[in-house]
Amino acid sequence: MSAPHVFETEVFYEDTDMGGIVYHANYLKFIERARSAFVRGLGVDQLALRDAGTVFVVRRVAAEFLRPARFEERLEVRTAAVSATGVRMVLSQEVRRGADLLFRAEVELVCMGASGRPQRLPAGLAAALAG
Amino acid sequence: MSAPHVFETEVFYEDTDMGGIVYHANYLKFIERARSAFVRGLGVDQLALRDAGTVFVVRRVAAEFLRPARFEERLEVRTAAVSATGVRMVLSQEVRRGADLLFRAEVELVCMGASGRPQRLPAGLAAALAG
Amino acid sequence: MSAPHVFETEVFYEDTDMGGIVYHANYLKFIERARSAFVRGLGVDQLALRDAGTVFVVRRVAAEFLRPARFEERLEVRTAAVSATGVRMVLSQEVRRGADLLFRAEVELVCMGASGRPQRLPAGLAAALAG
Amino acid sequence: MSAPHVFETEVFYEDTDMGGIVYHANYLKFIERARSAFVRGLGVDQLALRDAGTVFVVRRVAAEFLRPARFEERLEVRTAAVSATGVRMVLSQEVRRGADLLFRAEVELVCMGASGRPQRLPAGLAAALAG
Repeated sequence: MSAPHVFETEVFYEDTDMGGIVYHANYLKFIERARSAFVRGLGVDQLALRDAGTVFVVRRVAAEFLRPARFEERLEVRTAAVSATGVRMVLSQEVRRGADLLFRAEVELVCMGASGRPQRLPAGLAAALAG
Repeated sequence: MSAPHVFETEVFYEDTDMGGIVYHANYLKFIERARSAFVRGLGVDQLALRDAGTVFVVRRVAAEFLRPARFEERLEVRTAAVSATGVRMVLSQEVRRGADLLFRAEVELVCMGASGRPQRLPAGLAAALAG
Repeated sequence: MSAPHVFETEVFYEDTDMGGIVYHANYLKFIERARSAFVRGLGVDQLALRDAGTVFVVRRVAAEFLRPARFEERLEVRTAAVSATGVRMVLSQEVRRGADLLFRAEVELVCMGASGRPQRLPAGLAAALAG
Repeated sequence: MSAPHVFETEVFYEDTDMGGIVYHANYLKFIERARSAFVRGLGVDQLALRDAGTVFVVRRVAAEFLRPARFEERLEVRTAAVSATGVRMVLSQEVRRGADLLFRAEVELVCMGASGRPQRLPAGLAAALAG
């Protein structure tokens, strides 16, 4: 597919732990921030969807923590679509500090409707991801 | 009023920061956990209230951070009612580690209705707090 | 190996998100709380290790999010050792609410020394995990 | 003193709670992010200070929560020095969304040295704050 989406974020004091590095669970927050910007860039309005009862739910994460990040470092999250079919999309996401790869994950999300049941991805999103 | 409500919690790795101590904003989480237990103990069902559109909103916090807490320490949160009138309640809360006072705050909460406007405290709660 | 270690925790207001359920990244916090109790139960003093420069670093997580958890629910985290060899241990962790399985993950941790290089697991821990 | 320092941040999904708004304790994170940028702009290198054993510790917060913020809103944090004397500085901080004032706080910080005792503010910082 096309070039990955790039999102920049920064390590704040709140992100660190007593090991002096970013607390591991916070990488999931970093890549979630990037996904919000990613789908927004594809024309998806998550707030409007939610008001209509539709949400994207994380179903599976396979993550590798490769190098630690530290306070005040600027990080780049790269997001690319792996697949998008029916109710499901799979994304590949990386966190980089300059040339260094710190973290990478494959994330599977399912689109859920107001009924609490999976529903097809919004047509525009599916088309954009397939593009 | 009566003896303070006591709630126990523990410092988890996630609560620490790169200073090796509990991240300051997390004390607000600790005392919020205690408030949930406190109002539950007074017969308030926050989930049922929320389904009916009623929530308690923090309106003001005056907090002092006196001594740091560290990983794996067991903390005790003491909560006492200062006042409860109309739409508003004021609580006094302390975080202690054994005999040491680590943190104390006065917290003002307002009861908000489905309209987004303040509404009177649930009658049972107001009576219990006045008790 | 032996019966899984059981750790109980509760969903606090801070754990929820605007979807009305537990924010997905917080399951990593729940299982990390359980790991701290798990290794402590095996005689490992993480604070003493850290003062000596030794920390356990999360290297890999493969997680499935199966059912949502909600405010005030009591959760049980079950932790079992999958393997423990050299510098590395692999744990299997589940989050349950009563009989319902909400989340499960396989977590790989590496023991890191003061030099920033991997070092062998503490002997007592390796023996206990192999037991 | 001079014009307030302005820092921009955004509400991420992780910042919300089941009330559909920003979880109250997270405003303390927002203003802490702004303080890091503020002191960095005054030439203070918090990482270098920390390596030398010096940290800024929050001693007191008096906060008012005026209006809720929601997912994806862009917020502006304004920070101004109130006083800076000896070991202590007091800042006034506001969170705004456009023209709306959402939150304001007065925050007192104390400079702590390697001994765990208060020490004088770095000379450059004290001068800059007095400017």
